[in-house]
Amino acid sequence: MRVYNFAAGPSTLPIEVLEKAQAEFLDFAGTGMSVCEISHRDKAYDAVVKQAEALVRELLNVPEDYAVIFVQGGASQQFAAIPLNLMHNGKADYIVTGNFAKKAWQEGQIYGEAVKIGDSSDKTYTYIPNVDTLNYSPDADYVHITSNNTIFGTRYDKFPTCKAPLVADMSSEIFSREIDVSKFGVIYAGAQKNLAPAGVTIVIAKRELIQNPLKICPTMLKWKIQDENGSLYNTPPCFSIYMAKLVLESLKAKGGVAAINQVNEYKAKLLYDFIDNSSFYTNSVVPQFRSIMNVPFVTPNAELDAKFIAESKKAGLVSLKGHRLVGGMRASIYNAMPVEGVKALVEFMKKFEMENK
Amino acid sequence: MRVYNFAAGPSTLPIEVLEKAQAEFLDFAGTGMSVCEISHRDKAYDAVVKQAEALVRELLNVPEDYAVIFVQGGASQQFAAIPLNLMHNGKADYIVTGNFAKKAWQEGQIYGEAVKIGDSSDKTYTYIPNVDTLNYSPDADYVHITSNNTIFGTRYDKFPTCKAPLVADMSSEIFSREIDVSKFGVIYAGAQKNLAPAGVTIVIAKRELIQNPLKICPTMLKWKIQDENGSLYNTPPCFSIYMAKLVLESLKAKGGVAAINQVNEYKAKLLYDFIDNSSFYTNSVVPQFRSIMNVPFVTPNAELDAKFIAESKKAGLVSLKGHRLVGGMRASIYNAMPVEGVKALVEFMKKFEMENK
Repeated sequence: MRVYNFAAGPSTLPIEVLEKAQAEFLDFAGTGMSVCEISHRDKAYDAVVKQAEALVRELLNVPEDYAVIFVQGGASQQFAAIPLNLMHNGKADYIVTGNFAKKAWQEGQIYGEAVKIGDSSDKTYTYIPNVDTLNYSPDADYVHITSNNTIFGTRYDKFPTCKAPLVADMSSEIFSREIDVSKFGVIYAGAQKNLAPAGVTIVIAKRELIQNPLKICPTMLKWKIQDENGSLYNTPPCFSIYMAKLVLESLKAKGGVAAINQVNEYKAKLLYDFIDNSSFYTNSVVPQFRSIMNVPFVTPNAELDAKFIAESKKAGLVSLKGHRLVGGMRASIYNAMPVEGVKALVEFMKKFEMENK
Repeated sequence: MRVYNFAAGPSTLPIEVLEKAQAEFLDFAGTGMSVCEISHRDKAYDAVVKQAEALVRELLNVPEDYAVIFVQGGASQQFAAIPLNLMHNGKADYIVTGNFAKKAWQEGQIYGEAVKIGDSSDKTYTYIPNVDTLNYSPDADYVHITSNNTIFGTRYDKFPTCKAPLVADMSSEIFSREIDVSKFGVIYAGAQKNLAPAGVTIVIAKRELIQNPLKICPTMLKWKIQDENGSLYNTPPCFSIYMAKLVLESLKAKGGVAAINQVNEYKAKLLYDFIDNSSFYTNSVVPQFRSIMNVPFVTPNAELDAKFIAESKKAGLVSLKGHRLVGGMRASIYNAMPVEGVKALVEFMKKFEMENK
């Protein structure tokens, strides 16, 4: 029986995508091979990469002077790639709003002066600093943000307006709400939340910014090279890109980002409204900054939290355990989580509250 | 209809592995989720990584003081990781026996003095330099080789005996013949030839060598960190590791590396004997150094080569086109290529010769 999977990533994928991938797993596009076996130089596979790129461009309305590339590995690897591609003056600003934002900042320190211009750790990352009053460095090569914080369940309600190019880790929210790409220098996102199985990261970068990677940048981390080769400089993570293409096709068929955003807002509201009207469950994020993708919450005590996690699992609602840095529960309700899944969670929460109040 | 896929990588996988993956694609290990969706922190997935590592250790008889890790991306990324983990004195030796050996050497030059101590480009990489008479640097941090050269169809018949740790790219031959791991400092291999779909690379490294990566090494390229975290420091390429586990289980069931090596030698002999006894086809590699994984060959002229590629494809023998650096044809006959596939190729070659002589 298929469960509702609330994992933060890797995470649930659209069932129609999984079924299509399964159906053609032994014979991709009539080639007599699995998509796992076909050469990345084969025309049939080349078409997959081109279509995936075209779908990203279409769904996010990416301006033409931006590269859209699929690179190996996860977003954490890009924490190094960012300074290695962009830090020409040896200085960058970082807004630290959570665990991964902090890791990105720490990685930046390897390669230059990474200035922490904002930090919400004083209140366990339950808010986003006011981006209008931060002390941006006049000589920064870029300003780095994590637009949605997976562990702490926050997101930027508005983005910084800064002179330096804005670099955003959108791993846990890309394709979940409309964004104006032209306002960013670089957007990057590990696939394993809203896009595809783990192993690939999408990078959307203004081309003029990525022409001079640092001398010590590993060739495979040079965005310019990947862009010049249409993400096929060497063997890409073929299966993950193929799955990304299927997910994006599915998203387009559902009406695109604006349409899925409405569904996402609706799902999040169901859950937050229930939590806010309950005296049993708590979400401690400042409402203005609540993520519509990751919803952390707790019961009155840790013992009940543990019981909740165990019993919800038995009820087919899995991976609800919160990150160890936060404790309690976390429901990740990405694009692929059906409304029915969120409704089932709320029903379970009601029942659990009744039985344990 | 399933074709015989002679691609150099990504390449053919064992049919029983593909069928198993397809069968459980929507419900992995009774979890009610696809293996593409399950959290890498889930016990069911953790078991996959542990089993994959254990199978590598068992099948290659890896000594206990060696790390066995699965890292993101391909072997090309490791071209940078090698100096970044090992080049403490700023100097390393490289034996350049082909395209990827050359790329590894070039990447080494970014981080220090990469000395080309051997080079077979004078005869289009059709041989391996005599490893007993090379001028090894007394102060090298390591000696790098490419044990099997995918494009040129050569392999080392014996390995260098050198003071510095031997680092070997075994991407296109790992698990195809028995090796004494203890003779190497580091062995690495991109998965997409003998192991799994693209997106993961296996690194086997003597632990004492990898304790002090260079300061500028990106965190994700630090082998030590991956080792300390059992390849789960961050989200790994979950699906590729899962497939690797299935492939290794299948290999073990077939008798392991010694058994598959006999099959590989048999398949290669079928093909080389036929070529050598023909006045129509030519393989120009010095016999002593012929790869049993990649077999390049040509007909009397380029026009017939093109015809061969077109007609063989129609006959269900696909991806036989040689690399652009070599031209002609190349049959990659990895572990997963059935004996029947090689026999079918030889039969086709006979027929084509008869018709075009």
